[in-house]
Amino acid sequence: MQRVNESKIEGRNAVTEAFRSGKTIDRLFILDGCQDGPILTIKREARKQDTVIKYVDRERLDQMSETGKHQGVIAIAAAYEYAEMDDIFNLAGEKGEDPFVILLDNIEDPHNLGAIIRTANLAGAHGVIIPKNRAVGLTSTVARTSAGALNYTPVVKVTNLSQTIEDLKKRGMWFVCADMDGETMYKLNLKGPIGLVIGNEGEGVGRLVKEKCDFVASIPMKGDIDSLNASVACGVLAYEIVRQRLS
Amino acid sequence: MQRVNESKIEGRNAVTEAFRSGKTIDRLFILDGCQDGPILTIKREARKQDTVIKYVDRERLDQMSETGKHQGVIAIAAAYEYAEMDDIFNLAGEKGEDPFVILLDNIEDPHNLGAIIRTANLAGAHGVIIPKNRAVGLTSTVARTSAGALNYTPVVKVTNLSQTIEDLKKRGMWFVCADMDGETMYKLNLKGPIGLVIGNEGEGVGRLVKEKCDFVASIPMKGDIDSLNASVACGVLAYEIVRQRLS
Repeated sequence: MQRVNESKIEGRNAVTEAFRSGKTIDRLFILDGCQDGPILTIKREARKQDTVIKYVDRERLDQMSETGKHQGVIAIAAAYEYAEMDDIFNLAGEKGEDPFVILLDNIEDPHNLGAIIRTANLAGAHGVIIPKNRAVGLTSTVARTSAGALNYTPVVKVTNLSQTIEDLKKRGMWFVCADMDGETMYKLNLKGPIGLVIGNEGEGVGRLVKEKCDFVASIPMKGDIDSLNASVACGVLAYEIVRQRLS
Repeated sequence: MQRVNESKIEGRNAVTEAFRSGKTIDRLFILDGCQDGPILTIKREARKQDTVIKYVDRERLDQMSETGKHQGVIAIAAAYEYAEMDDIFNLAGEKGEDPFVILLDNIEDPHNLGAIIRTANLAGAHGVIIPKNRAVGLTSTVARTSAGALNYTPVVKVTNLSQTIEDLKKRGMWFVCADMDGETMYKLNLKGPIGLVIGNEGEGVGRLVKEKCDFVASIPMKGDIDSLNASVACGVLAYEIVRQRLS
């Protein structure tokens, strides 16, 4: 469902600008032996993002170039496309199931986002909703960590998570968020059309989003430390929903 | 419970050797301006392991040095101490609970091991058992990802996981491993003194270890891809054990 568009960025300024704007660069081709200032700047940016650098000869760059003006550097950017909200409801409809979505309140770690998309796919959730601001988007690290799930599970990006919850309530959905002060998850009725809200790694679910939720669910904590990893917490709660749906 | 011993490694050969033997180096101090071959080799090894490098002046290195022969480089190695098997049983005894341990059949990713130790702590497991070979050990990445749990939850290293399972069966424990061809976890009785075996990221639980287990449990998979992330799978199964213990 998610399509990947690859695009070529050519020339020193364009590539530097792409890195600085936070674009996800998958691969970087640099003319072998090139060591001047702008190239060193690009290499530094690439290292920050763990981009793979390949050193190639001029002939190879000339072949790859679409503009004929590569100036010794070509970057390949990956752009994973977001889905529409209706894709989620259509998927639930096709399977004849009550909608089950996972909403992420500002997950920042791409490994967590990837693992959550992977979990969403296997727990039978029909989609993942992420906010536009602050949170990590669909980078190539997310795609890799999702172990292929990004190709099947729709990921929708919204401007305002609280507003989205309001809108989806009008479509008959219930919302449960994860927080330590909630009711033990085993005691809640989590059947029916449900949205599971998982908070940020450090701060949990935001106040405004929490107020919109119908239930607050807690995972029993028997240990000495504060909280589970966000993707583990999401897995534990998603599978409590699976268990209740199966029973 | 886990104690951390810091040790200083001084001199070019000793530090190079420490990196190459896979020792966990937490911090590396290098004489500012030093650029010769052996130092560049050490810097390359440090970058592979994401070790933090600090460039300091000769006075600082002389102060830190215990041997007086630092040759421009001092590494600080962290060694997290493993627990003994009896620490696990003592912890369960102190809490008046049936022993609950998590056994890892060759987890290779330090982030997964850290997240699993974190989960073990919060799910009330009394310890984690890892094998000596192939698997990742208690590196500083594991300690950091465990979010402090490594200070509370005993981690025991054993030579042979199958043999350990045999030994623990004699102490009254039952063993369940996670595999796709098993019985759905909700249908198994997972109460009592239990060992949960989680397989390697790519290959799952090894044949010899699986044969020693009393049950094979599967997590219901409703999606398009193969398997959950190892630390998420561990969380889902550990919390099924928590649910059954609470019910």
